[in-house]
Amino acid sequence: MKWYVLRFTWLSGAGKTTLSDAVFDHLQKSWIQNIQQLDWDLVREHLTKDLWFSKQDREENIKRITFVAWLLTKHWVWVLATFISPYVNLRKYVRDNTTNFIEVFVNAPLNICEDRDVKGLYAKARKWEIENFTGISDPYETPENPEIEVRTDLCSIQEWVNQVIAYLQEHNYIAK
Amino acid sequence: MKWYVLRFTWLSGAGKTTLSDAVFDHLQKSWIQNIQQLDWDLVREHLTKDLWFSKQDREENIKRITFVAWLLTKHWVWVLATFISPYVNLRKYVRDNTTNFIEVFVNAPLNICEDRDVKGLYAKARKWEIENFTGISDPYETPENPEIEVRTDLCSIQEWVNQVIAYLQEHNYIAK
Repeated sequence: MKWYVLRFTWLSGAGKTTLSDAVFDHLQKSWIQNIQQLDWDLVREHLTKDLWFSKQDREENIKRITFVAWLLTKHWVWVLATFISPYVNLRKYVRDNTTNFIEVFVNAPLNICEDRDVKGLYAKARKWEIENFTGISDPYETPENPEIEVRTDLCSIQEWVNQVIAYLQEHNYIAK
Repeated sequence: MKWYVLRFTWLSGAGKTTLSDAVFDHLQKSWIQNIQQLDWDLVREHLTKDLWFSKQDREENIKRITFVAWLLTKHWVWVLATFISPYVNLRKYVRDNTTNFIEVFVNAPLNICEDRDVKGLYAKARKWEIENFTGISDPYETPENPEIEVRTDLCSIQEWVNQVIAYLQEHNYIAK
């Protein structure tokens, strides 16, 4: 038995949280009880109140989260982390500093993410009410070799989950 | 079976780390394998690089550590935390926001702590090279109702540990 960091990455509105929630439910039903979801809201409230969206702040943000994820896997906890993580070098930092890192590229075209605009953030970014907003006024460096890529605009949520679970089963990370 | 936050508090040089290390060893020998020590160096490297010794910074420091301790106990990890935590209201914050909190007052008179001066910090504080140094240029509010009080100037390390372990056994937190 091993413990993994599943890191869901891509733009706001791509479906990271939806997929993370669904994978969480599936793992729990598969008798994996020790799972922690880490997301922006939780981490912001407790660890990163002082940080915003500059390159430097994003870097510090990722470093704090990475430490927490490392601590948790060290103590036999699965971590499901949903963060935009737009820069290749920072995703590499996470990979190098956590145990058993699995990058899940939760892919959907920008226009689809913007249409969904679940939190109304794109609308604000277009009005320049949010600076350095990934996809609009800040770059996203596309993952080159993610362990898993899910196209959330092309299939159902059930299919997204099936794809992640199939990967975990194929690699014997969870039982079939 | 439950999981606890043992929080060792008092001045630099009181013996917090020595006691935490010894309790860690004892717990491991008692078949408690899932223990995390949290101390200034570890936390500073990963979570609190931006914080120093002002009241505001100390508060933010404690809040971040408390979140990590809460996450760990939630996932069945014992936490041994060694921090000066000089203010009553902040220790109360930790108590209110973690599960099964046990305050260990690692007590020794200031002059003894200063004589030990393991890290050379008192010397620097006396020369005003460190500001807001607890015990010298910043206050320490003595714990009023700690679960355990150990006088590290009056008995041997083995006796300090025995006192902590006796408390845990008496309350059925660990087996006798």
